[in-house]
Formats: sequence, C-alpha cells, structure tokens
Amino acid sequence: MRISELSQRSGVPVPSIKFYLREGLLHRGELTSPNQARYDESHLNRLRLVSALTEVGGLSVAGTRDVLQAIDSDEANLNGLMDITLRAVHPITGDPEPTEAALAEVDALAERHGWYVHPGSPLREELARVLSALHSAGLVPDQEWIDGYARAADDVAHRDHYYIGNLAELDEILKTVLVGTVLGERFLAALRRMAQASEAHRRYGV
Amino acid sequence: MRISELSQRSGVPVPSIKFYLREGLLHRGELTSPNQARYDESHLNRLRLVSALTEVGGLSVAGTRDVLQAIDSDEANLNGLMDITLRAVHPITGDPEPTEAALAEVDALAERHGWYVHPGSPLREELARVLSALHSAGLVPDQEWIDGYARAADDVAHRDHYYIGNLAELDEILKTVLVGTVLGERFLAALRRMAQASEAHRRYGV
Repeated sequence: MRISELSQRSGVPVPSIKFYLREGLLHRGELTSPNQARYDESHLNRLRLVSALTEVGGLSVAGTRDVLQAIDSDEANLNGLMDITLRAVHPITGDPEPTEAALAEVDALAERHGWYVHPGSPLREELARVLSALHSAGLVPDQEWIDGYARAADDVAHRDHYYIGNLAELDEILKTVLVGTVLGERFLAALRRMAQASEAHRRYGV
Repeated sequence: MRISELSQRSGVPVPSIKFYLREGLLHRGELTSPNQARYDESHLNRLRLVSALTEVGGLSVAGTRDVLQAIDSDEANLNGLMDITLRAVHPITGDPEPTEAALAEVDALAERHGWYVHPGSPLREELARVLSALHSAGLVPDQEWIDGYARAADDVAHRDHYYIGNLAELDEILKTVLVGTVLGERFLAALRRMAQASEAHRRYGV
C-alpha cells in the first residue's frame, strides 16, 4: 500500500509517518520509484505500536527507539527489555539519590511479599526514591498502606503473566510486555483515580 | 534561616531554590537587606513538596505551578484539584480522540464496579484513550483482566481514603491528595513492575 493508505488505515497523519521514518521508528518501505515506496502489514502494525507508545504512552522519540531496538534485537530478553522500558517511561535525570533507610524499607517490603529482586535492578532504587519523596513531602505511609498497595500490584502482575503465558511467540511476548508495561500502568493509574473520585463523591458528595 | 540553611535542611541545591523562587513555585522570604532574605518552616515544607513533585513526580514547572495554585486557592476543592492534577501528570497534547466503542467500554466498566463518574470528568476520556491504544497496539484484554485491574484500583483507592479520612485540616487533605496522586501512582507502577519481574524470575528464571 502507499503512504496515504497506511495513514488512513492507521489513523496516523502522513507528516507523522514521515517523521517516524526519518527518526528510524518505522522501517523503510520498498522503493517503487525514486520518491514513492510501498508499505505492508508489518508497517501498519509497527506504526500502530509506535503511535500507542508515543501518543498515549507518552514515551519520547529516543525512549521509543530504545525499546523498539530492545524488542527487535537478536539477543532480546525479558530482563533487559524491562530495564530499558523502565528508563524510557521514567527517564532518570536529576532524581535525588534514595536514602539508605528507604532502600532498607524496600528490601523489607520485597521480603514480606516473597519478591525476588535481581541484583542491580533499577526497580529497587526507583521504589526507594518514591518512598523517600513521599516522606519528604510529609506523607508517612504506614506498613498497612504500603502492603495493601503491594498486594494490589502482586495481583495485577499475576494477571499479566497469566495473559502472557497464553502467548507462544517470543516476538509477541516481548511486544506484550512492552505495551503492557507502558500502557498498563497508565491504565491502572486512571482506574485508581476514577475509583478515588467515585469514593470521594460517595463520602463527601464532591 | 538563610538560603544556605534552607538548602542544607531540604537537600535542594541553592541554584534550584533560586529557580523555584523565580518561577513562583516557592514564596519569597522576608527581606533582611537588599540582597538577603530570611526563610522559615513554611518555605522548608513547600520546598520539599515542590522537590518531590518535580524531581520524583516528574511534573513540569507549569504543571507544578497549576497544582500549587489549586491547593493554595481560597476556593480549593477536591474535584477541581483532581482534574488539574490529572492534566499536570499527563499533559493532554496531541492525544488521539478515544473511540466511541472504548468510551462505551469505560461506561460499562464504571457501572459494573459501581463507580460514579462526574459529568465531564477527564478520567472517562483518559481511560477510553488508553483502552483504544491497547487495542490498536494489538493487545485485546478480556473483561476478566480489566476487572482484575479495576478491583485492584478500587482496593488502593479505599486505602487512600481511609488514610485521608484521618486528616482534619483541608490544607492537609489537599496536599495529601496531590502528593498521593502524583507519587502514589508512580509507587504503584514500580511495585507492579517489581512483582512482574519477580514472577518472571519464578516462571522462566530470567
């Protein structure tokens, strides 16, 4: 198909498609003349993925390029992909160092919930940083609140793995992990706020 | 205290404090000479809040200014604050329109879970947009997956309200809602990924 049809079927405007091609987020089509190319279903699928990650997932162009390289790589694996995805979703720039107390709190939390944390995992620091920030902003969540959040997270993580367990191809698994991580957390955040707003209405009528 | 002590006690570098003063995120101190000012505990608390929202919460300067104005305003209220916070956390720029099918899916979801969605709530569109994006990226979550996420969200929202219910002052409530929304969702996202990574290790040894 031509670029106009690719645009129509994906809902992505032609200038955006050209931008994605220039930035290397979308592979080139097959040239049929010096200034015309032919595209196929692989372009359509990739374009929908790129659009979902950037427009709704909020990833930057550089972040999107990193995660796409990670799923396209011959040495693609889940751990590597998760770490790269984490960096793309929450770029670590100028974030303060987490305190030792917060790191210890995360280790205790992981132990209580039986979570394995792989050595050097950026998640341990990420969690500790958020805990430090909560404390310094004046919120001191008690263990019951923290553990309630951890159980909710554990529950949705098991659902994700059940979903992934039904997939056969590594390609499909990696793509699902990527989309599920980026959009799944935005989905969960929006659900949480909807539930909060509803509960506020029930309690206070606001 | 002087700016150097404010910096030391908050852990925020002096140039950043000056930047926050210029940008109106931090109120001016009391001038003790033409180029020296005195700061108090109110500055320290506000500075810690600003730092948590921007450095860890990832809010922009404009977004932070908007949410601070919302909690400082004489007409501050929860609904208004939640809407402004939502826009600050996920700036709506160039996001595609959600499909009618996705909006209907959100309405059905809210009804199943007994959630009240106030008219014109940006959350309905936000959720529909994420659902549309999941579909277009090739993930078609079944109702059980969606409802599992919704129940987890409901559970943490109840915990948040229990926490807030123990606070007496409106000031404190608004600040807690703000910080809880911005950092709470990052906390939940990090917990979810830690649980996912742990489960991946258990299942696949990766």
